[in-house]
Amino acid sequence: MENVKAIFEPKTVALIGSSRIKEKVGMASPQLFENVVYNMRKFFRGKTYVLDVDANAEYTRVDELPETPDMAVLMLPPEQSIEQAEKCAEKRVKALVGITGGYKDDQRRRLLKLKEEYGVRILGPNTIMGVINAANGLNTTFERDVMPRKGSIAVICQSGGVGACLLDWACFYNVGISKLAFMGDKIDVDDVDLLRYLGEDEETKVVCLYMEGIKKGREFIEEARKIVKKKPLVVLKGGITEESVKRAKSHTASIAGSDEIFNAALKKAGIIRVEDIEELMNSAIALSKQPPMHGDNIAIVSNVGGPAILAADAVARNNLKLAALSDETKRKIEGLYPGVDATNPIDMIADARAERYSKVLELVLKDKSVDGVLIINMLKSCFFEPEDAEVIPKIARKYPGKPVVDVPAGGEDFALVYKVLGDTNIPLYNLPEKAVKALKALRLYGRVLEKH
Amino acid sequence: MENVKAIFEPKTVALIGSSRIKEKVGMASPQLFENVVYNMRKFFRGKTYVLDVDANAEYTRVDELPETPDMAVLMLPPEQSIEQAEKCAEKRVKALVGITGGYKDDQRRRLLKLKEEYGVRILGPNTIMGVINAANGLNTTFERDVMPRKGSIAVICQSGGVGACLLDWACFYNVGISKLAFMGDKIDVDDVDLLRYLGEDEETKVVCLYMEGIKKGREFIEEARKIVKKKPLVVLKGGITEESVKRAKSHTASIAGSDEIFNAALKKAGIIRVEDIEELMNSAIALSKQPPMHGDNIAIVSNVGGPAILAADAVARNNLKLAALSDETKRKIEGLYPGVDATNPIDMIADARAERYSKVLELVLKDKSVDGVLIINMLKSCFFEPEDAEVIPKIARKYPGKPVVDVPAGGEDFALVYKVLGDTNIPLYNLPEKAVKALKALRLYGRVLEKH
Repeated sequence: MENVKAIFEPKTVALIGSSRIKEKVGMASPQLFENVVYNMRKFFRGKTYVLDVDANAEYTRVDELPETPDMAVLMLPPEQSIEQAEKCAEKRVKALVGITGGYKDDQRRRLLKLKEEYGVRILGPNTIMGVINAANGLNTTFERDVMPRKGSIAVICQSGGVGACLLDWACFYNVGISKLAFMGDKIDVDDVDLLRYLGEDEETKVVCLYMEGIKKGREFIEEARKIVKKKPLVVLKGGITEESVKRAKSHTASIAGSDEIFNAALKKAGIIRVEDIEELMNSAIALSKQPPMHGDNIAIVSNVGGPAILAADAVARNNLKLAALSDETKRKIEGLYPGVDATNPIDMIADARAERYSKVLELVLKDKSVDGVLIINMLKSCFFEPEDAEVIPKIARKYPGKPVVDVPAGGEDFALVYKVLGDTNIPLYNLPEKAVKALKALRLYGRVLEKH
Repeated sequence: MENVKAIFEPKTVALIGSSRIKEKVGMASPQLFENVVYNMRKFFRGKTYVLDVDANAEYTRVDELPETPDMAVLMLPPEQSIEQAEKCAEKRVKALVGITGGYKDDQRRRLLKLKEEYGVRILGPNTIMGVINAANGLNTTFERDVMPRKGSIAVICQSGGVGACLLDWACFYNVGISKLAFMGDKIDVDDVDLLRYLGEDEETKVVCLYMEGIKKGREFIEEARKIVKKKPLVVLKGGITEESVKRAKSHTASIAGSDEIFNAALKKAGIIRVEDIEELMNSAIALSKQPPMHGDNIAIVSNVGGPAILAADAVARNNLKLAALSDETKRKIEGLYPGVDATNPIDMIADARAERYSKVLELVLKDKSVDGVLIINMLKSCFFEPEDAEVIPKIARKYPGKPVVDVPAGGEDFALVYKVLGDTNIPLYNLPEKAVKALKALRLYGRVLEKH
């Protein structure tokens, strides 16, 4: 465990590659090497040693390094990477991250032997992108200047492509990430090790996992059961059909089981399962910012009619319920704002501004029949101004036990409100349906906690 | 019909409002009036007369106008709007667009009487946003400077909020719009009239409709049956549950039927039904740019493994099939690119560039077992450059009977490839699942055409 920690929290890192390599195997290339060096020098707040095996550089051999690094990143073709890995292991490097792929079975075995002999822990090989730790700036990806915002969502990926997509998504949409790990061939460090590490990691509030199959099913489920008591675990699984399973098998050499059995196992372990990358990110955002929901009843507070109806439809589709507001709540709202019909979903009408949002949100959160609130605040066709949204986190903070999510529906409307609320604890979604799915994730996690 | 046409294609328009109004009913306000004037003066390529009933303006009475306008936009509170509408009707104005709301039943009846007496056609009242025609610049919305790109997607909305959201979405994501109409209270011009008009409209290739209920069910279905022979009709319906139906009823005064009956009727009429605003837009984009799909078999051509597996999963979830590529196709691909396994979904590996995409796409489109192609081209973790995407429309054009959609999965990756392909006929989606749903819409429309 101590050595798994060195994958994410090394104080010293050796980057081992070549600026002259021509062999085109498993993504080994001078450009890749240079990009990782660039990223590490720019972002990493520990010590980085660059070891260029083919050039007259400051360091060309592990022996030459002034100290033993905690972790080494292998960016050479398999045979050369193994050679360097051996030297690292002998020097008691704690962890290895194998970026390049193309390893044959016996090469994987030789690499794994180092773990058995020296206790060095190995991520990969074939991780392609390696690891990111937004807290210490560790970034072994070869995407120049790509670094997600520091946050509390951890992401573990079996697939480089899905991981790269999640990384791109997180950077573009400003999602706060704690750690990101690409597992690659998983000869040593696997989902179970990473769950164990992330379960203890104080920076991480939510763990996201993209997987195509489980190798050690029982251990995985056991570890998941432990972690979900402390923090939610959200899983996206690729390979639900026979054909895609076949492909998943050839792709990362793991065995995908029957999807139904898998689903039942996840559910039993208290894992939240999602269907696509956007839902994975959207659920994680909600889970990292808002409390779990302890009941099915949603109140919808909106300044437009149609989108509120679409939200109500999504509530039904996702097996949640529209809260039946108490007579007192309704009477108070309708007393304050004649013309507003306080039947849930509440259409506060197009001229609702901060004051009306503030009062109605408070009345609704106070109502015992309400377990969570979905707010819709459109700008287009309404009088709402982006700054009006500031009341939402203010009121929500007074009711910390009930989740609140916000929908500035649309494109520009979303972007404008995001500028005001993006850094608060209110999760924002550009369509009602996405917000309802996020509330569903909060409800599922609420149920998990209630069972324990 | 001629007069319905005047709603969208007037040569002269009178904007009737007040710069001094204080009565706060149904969105009537000097600011709203000023914004509509601003938009019309900026965008409309016909003649605009501004008639300010309360100010010492150039025109304060319909009588004073130098000519009878084809269409008049009513932006006063109900009683005053009716008064002006009467004068317009007497002058043989062909069409009225009632922006403001708050009409009582008897006021609606008095407005409708004008149609019976003079043949003037009335959109609304309570349309809030009125109409947009991107071809002639007609824009009666009060959102300053908001004008979608000219294109071939028409949008009809029963709800102002959903319409505003669709407008915002279209502008922000650069979706090409032909016409946009907000129906409001629907006292006269309704879905059936608009379908009839848009069915004939040469600028419109796809019709999108947001509805909460049908008033003249049989007529609507009959008109839909006619239109779908010429162009696809995509419907998003709000109000699928008892609670949301109740709300829909109070919101636009139309009756929402049982959702299942509704669904069966839509299906029988050849209407494509979607579940949310994004799917509505994404389906419309595909239908406006690509041919219908005449078979269920999708080939997936990708430079990453995981996202291709997620695409394959989405194919199964949406009742489509992974095409079983012919042995010849497989042999040719694997012959050209050793290391690529040409089993569908085809993972062409991270170093695939324009040349490999071009050749594999052509081989796959040529294959008789393939009815449509989903391409994934990620930049992150891959060698693909945005310009490489240029080969996609080039090859797709050679096979005009088979749809091709493209997925530069993620955030920045999508934006970069969009710059290259956004103006071509290749629809782009930021996640595989969305592209599969778009292909499903093309398949559904293919089935509709096959039946006729």
